[in-house]
Amino acid sequence: MHNETVWNGNNLLQIMDDLFPIMRSITGPGVRKSLEKLQAIAPLVVHEVKSGSDVLDWTVPEEWHFKRAWIEDGKGTIVLDSESSNLHVVNFSVAVDQIMSREELLPHLHSLPETPHSVPYRTTYYAEQWGFCLSHNELQQLGDGPFHVRIDAKRTPGVLNYGEICVPGESPSEILISTHICHPQLANDNLSGMVLAAALANYIGKNKPSLTWRFVFVPGTIGAISWLSQNQNTVSTIVGGLVLTGLGDSSSFNWKKTRAGNGWIDRLVQQVLEQAVPDYHATLPFSPYGYDERQYCSPGFNLPIGRLTRAVHGTFPEYHTSDDNMDFVSASNLEESLELLKGIADAIDIDMVYQNLSPYAEPQLGRRGLYSAFGANVDPGRFQMALLWMLNQSDGTHSLSDISTVSKIPILELHDAAIILVEHELLIAVRHASEPFNQEFQGVE
Amino acid sequence: MHNETVWNGNNLLQIMDDLFPIMRSITGPGVRKSLEKLQAIAPLVVHEVKSGSDVLDWTVPEEWHFKRAWIEDGKGTIVLDSESSNLHVVNFSVAVDQIMSREELLPHLHSLPETPHSVPYRTTYYAEQWGFCLSHNELQQLGDGPFHVRIDAKRTPGVLNYGEICVPGESPSEILISTHICHPQLANDNLSGMVLAAALANYIGKNKPSLTWRFVFVPGTIGAISWLSQNQNTVSTIVGGLVLTGLGDSSSFNWKKTRAGNGWIDRLVQQVLEQAVPDYHATLPFSPYGYDERQYCSPGFNLPIGRLTRAVHGTFPEYHTSDDNMDFVSASNLEESLELLKGIADAIDIDMVYQNLSPYAEPQLGRRGLYSAFGANVDPGRFQMALLWMLNQSDGTHSLSDISTVSKIPILELHDAAIILVEHELLIAVRHASEPFNQEFQGVE
Amino acid sequence: MHNETVWNGNNLLQIMDDLFPIMRSITGPGVRKSLEKLQAIAPLVVHEVKSGSDVLDWTVPEEWHFKRAWIEDGKGTIVLDSESSNLHVVNFSVAVDQIMSREELLPHLHSLPETPHSVPYRTTYYAEQWGFCLSHNELQQLGDGPFHVRIDAKRTPGVLNYGEICVPGESPSEILISTHICHPQLANDNLSGMVLAAALANYIGKNKPSLTWRFVFVPGTIGAISWLSQNQNTVSTIVGGLVLTGLGDSSSFNWKKTRAGNGWIDRLVQQVLEQAVPDYHATLPFSPYGYDERQYCSPGFNLPIGRLTRAVHGTFPEYHTSDDNMDFVSASNLEESLELLKGIADAIDIDMVYQNLSPYAEPQLGRRGLYSAFGANVDPGRFQMALLWMLNQSDGTHSLSDISTVSKIPILELHDAAIILVEHELLIAVRHASEPFNQEFQGVE
Repeated sequence: MHNETVWNGNNLLQIMDDLFPIMRSITGPGVRKSLEKLQAIAPLVVHEVKSGSDVLDWTVPEEWHFKRAWIEDGKGTIVLDSESSNLHVVNFSVAVDQIMSREELLPHLHSLPETPHSVPYRTTYYAEQWGFCLSHNELQQLGDGPFHVRIDAKRTPGVLNYGEICVPGESPSEILISTHICHPQLANDNLSGMVLAAALANYIGKNKPSLTWRFVFVPGTIGAISWLSQNQNTVSTIVGGLVLTGLGDSSSFNWKKTRAGNGWIDRLVQQVLEQAVPDYHATLPFSPYGYDERQYCSPGFNLPIGRLTRAVHGTFPEYHTSDDNMDFVSASNLEESLELLKGIADAIDIDMVYQNLSPYAEPQLGRRGLYSAFGANVDPGRFQMALLWMLNQSDGTHSLSDISTVSKIPILELHDAAIILVEHELLIAVRHASEPFNQEFQGVE
Repeated sequence: MHNETVWNGNNLLQIMDDLFPIMRSITGPGVRKSLEKLQAIAPLVVHEVKSGSDVLDWTVPEEWHFKRAWIEDGKGTIVLDSESSNLHVVNFSVAVDQIMSREELLPHLHSLPETPHSVPYRTTYYAEQWGFCLSHNELQQLGDGPFHVRIDAKRTPGVLNYGEICVPGESPSEILISTHICHPQLANDNLSGMVLAAALANYIGKNKPSLTWRFVFVPGTIGAISWLSQNQNTVSTIVGGLVLTGLGDSSSFNWKKTRAGNGWIDRLVQQVLEQAVPDYHATLPFSPYGYDERQYCSPGFNLPIGRLTRAVHGTFPEYHTSDDNMDFVSASNLEESLELLKGIADAIDIDMVYQNLSPYAEPQLGRRGLYSAFGANVDPGRFQMALLWMLNQSDGTHSLSDISTVSKIPILELHDAAIILVEHELLIAVRHASEPFNQEFQGVE
Repeated sequence: MHNETVWNGNNLLQIMDDLFPIMRSITGPGVRKSLEKLQAIAPLVVHEVKSGSDVLDWTVPEEWHFKRAWIEDGKGTIVLDSESSNLHVVNFSVAVDQIMSREELLPHLHSLPETPHSVPYRTTYYAEQWGFCLSHNELQQLGDGPFHVRIDAKRTPGVLNYGEICVPGESPSEILISTHICHPQLANDNLSGMVLAAALANYIGKNKPSLTWRFVFVPGTIGAISWLSQNQNTVSTIVGGLVLTGLGDSSSFNWKKTRAGNGWIDRLVQQVLEQAVPDYHATLPFSPYGYDERQYCSPGFNLPIGRLTRAVHGTFPEYHTSDDNMDFVSASNLEESLELLKGIADAIDIDMVYQNLSPYAEPQLGRRGLYSAFGANVDPGRFQMALLWMLNQSDGTHSLSDISTVSKIPILELHDAAIILVEHELLIAVRHASEPFNQEFQGVE
């Protein structure tokens, strides 16, 4: 049973170790095998979309079945082989079995002259092409040819798969967690996101949350587009979301803002980061480039979804190369990320708007045992300040996170104060912070 | 006659000298005697609310009649006596007459180990308790006991008193000035606020103001709550207000913002402070702790009332101790505070919104003798700039204080320009800045 | 034909050389002669408003016909003569022919003791006065008198003239360019503005612009007021404008904001300045003093018109003196100003709002040949970023300039991307940025 394991950095790292050698792509058996392994963490359901289906402006591609890609030199020596790294073949390459000269081969080879020991990661999902990736050092030593070049792979009609978990909450308003699952043999990007999203789903599933949580594990771009296409009429229930990726390395955290830039989820995640992470100052502006936030934040959907990462794509040398391997991630980094995600989830769960039921002047807290008997002390104490802030600001428009911002009191302390004031019938919860102001309910004032 | 005395730092300090020895509390003869003395400054009316009355969530307490509190040691020597300081008894203590050991007595004694020479100020309004306050030095030398402990005091049904002055203005919109009157034998907090509020009432009463001014002299918390309870349906006429306290010491001025934080009164008071006080930069954010702004700014009332102080409660060592005595205040500090309050009152009074009656291009000022005959000079001069700013901005939406902000011209200079333009029928006053935009009147444009 | 000359710093400077000696004023033959010379650059139409006409709060003055003004000393030596500088006579002086003592003459003489070599520029349009301007050095050496003082000039009924060019665009929404034409013998203020406004009109007239452009060449104050009076009911079509003056000197550029301060034209001009001018940081706040923006920004009109200058009136020693002569300006400064104006005009012309016609997720750019075949590269490249930004932000609310602000991509690059996306039927232009949001058109989303 999923709920019995307590997931932490160490056991998540083990799952990543299992996932690392699997040859993933946007379709095919590698995706299915990976989703199956994630089911050890959380009960994700695997969905299928048929090849050739129209999904918004796109068409679902065929499945890619890959066996092996390798190059032999003139002497029959294998000089490059996908058996040593899945990255050696351009992902989604069509089959080839051909003898060719060095000149003919070269346009099909990808290397990185500036980091000559690294193998780049390249794809060709939407063109009938093929290619190999290798380190620049390997390229230099390739010899003159001719070469026997073979890719044993095929594209065949089948399905595109994605995983999904829904944890129903008190409210139908939804939080969407999305993570991409298509990268072959890159550890931080995005095995880290996959196992952490699953572990967060496991955590959320332990108790009924305030909001409904949905987790999707999708092939990049086409998977997100397929999911959006299938859920086009229901995504308006999404009140906030996070794309998770690159959370196993040692960089500091980054929140990339939603398209609107300053909505509820932006403010809440930044507040948790500021309180949890010393010297947090790394909020990134929205940009239409990146991961699947590109799709969620397209103007037609315009969902309030941001992105949480550590190292940011395109800005670190290991990005999309063979250096993003299991040495680039660690159990302690994963655990730190998991704790932060739990903190964000807790803050989301408790971020309610309350209404003061005794709003005219302060209610007499002393009579209720909530105030010290001997007055005129210099300092009212932290907890009494939390009580006073909650009473003062709870006019049906300010949420716990809003009050945390003005009072500088952590949201969890305000939540404790709110619970006590609710018990004394001085406050009542009127809605979740993510939900719109309910005019009717404000009749109390 | 009140209006004949010109109140200044010196004669206000004399009134404070008279008030200092009176044993005040939230109810009882000390309050009445203090209000009577303030009538020498301004004609305040004394109101009564019966003990036991329900006032919002609270109940008006009985009157506290106090005669004396003292402790004798085993040899019959008086070791602590309220005759030497009213602070020695916990304010509102019930009666006691008992022989007790040192161990029995100690829980009833309050001292300040960190400032061992100071006697703290403590209260017990809403519990049937008693206690003594003494310096930590006195506590150390108290001896072993047994002690004969006597408090000659009683709580009896009666009334809660507060003082009030209303100065009717051209408009029924009200400015509320509130000051607390319950502290026994503390000079800055709040005899300074009491005499200054009365002196301001005297100043305002000399001429009919634009707005209606109301001054309340209330016991802290319960007095403000009683006043709010009795005026619950009329406080919506309040367009701005100041809680006055701690204005006799030498600290720089502080404006604590209203709950909304950036309303008309906030902007106006800060503007006057910035122009009157060199290097003013001490605006405090709203907080639900402090003085009676806690009650006025509760969410049900949400009145636009801030607080003007010099030293801020809880942040200076003399706060709520025997060190807040007549040596802590001075005539010159009181006078400086009075001048600032008059400046704020003047700015409030003249802060009108005007409408330009010749709004299409500039009116020809030269024809009216308002512009120099020889053109093309480099500098138009301060007064012509004031005329031009008034004409340009007077579209029925900008008040004098708004125009002062954008033009950096002091509000009094703009007022002089406005008066001249009104005389030339180029401007007309349409409303006070604190009053809402009157759509109908804007027909001129 | 105007359109055949390519105007640049050198040929504009030649036109200024021709204009410099003409005795201009707010009315009279000097204005007509100057407007005629500007017709060499652009086809401006000369309008007339009769003397004595009521224009808003003002009356159009008579024409000033000036021949000569001079002073002879007792020996018959001419000691001051308008033949040597038009500035020597107070502009619009009435006639005089009188022998007078030094004491009688002195009140009619204007000099600048602080810059003793400079002749000031003074006017007396609206008073029946006369006077002379001279350098303080000249004043010191004037001798004892008596003096024979003669001004051969008259004020006679006639007309006030102004020039106007309208270049109709796709939209009736108008851009107003205004420049004053009344200063006699000052080069930067404002011959530079006159020739540059005309050269901009020539540039705009070469192709049909998106918006309609109107250029007015008006005597300062009374000319702008006359034009406003005659166009009072149509100025509401103006969506932005620039007052041009002082653009031939070597100072850095200044944008003086419109009265509203942050409208479309403010943001656009500042954006062009920031991209075109290194270290641009010289935006000035609105003020009701200055040039004809005073009239356009009066509260009745409140037009979105700002001002572009280099040296700012009243802040440089040459201002309104004989030192603002042809040595104070240069062809290269004029050319730099012209290029900036063309850049502003281009940005205005292309600043459209587009609607994404495939707004749900990203459209598949690869299928359309707009995306590289081999995925997973680190950097998408500038042009692909421009495509992605245009698709993401084009929801009918963001203009090219808005998108330039958030993306930091120059508006011309975004325009190129937009054109390609329009060709691929992925975008459609819905309105110009200056025009109000059209609710109806937004039906696509």
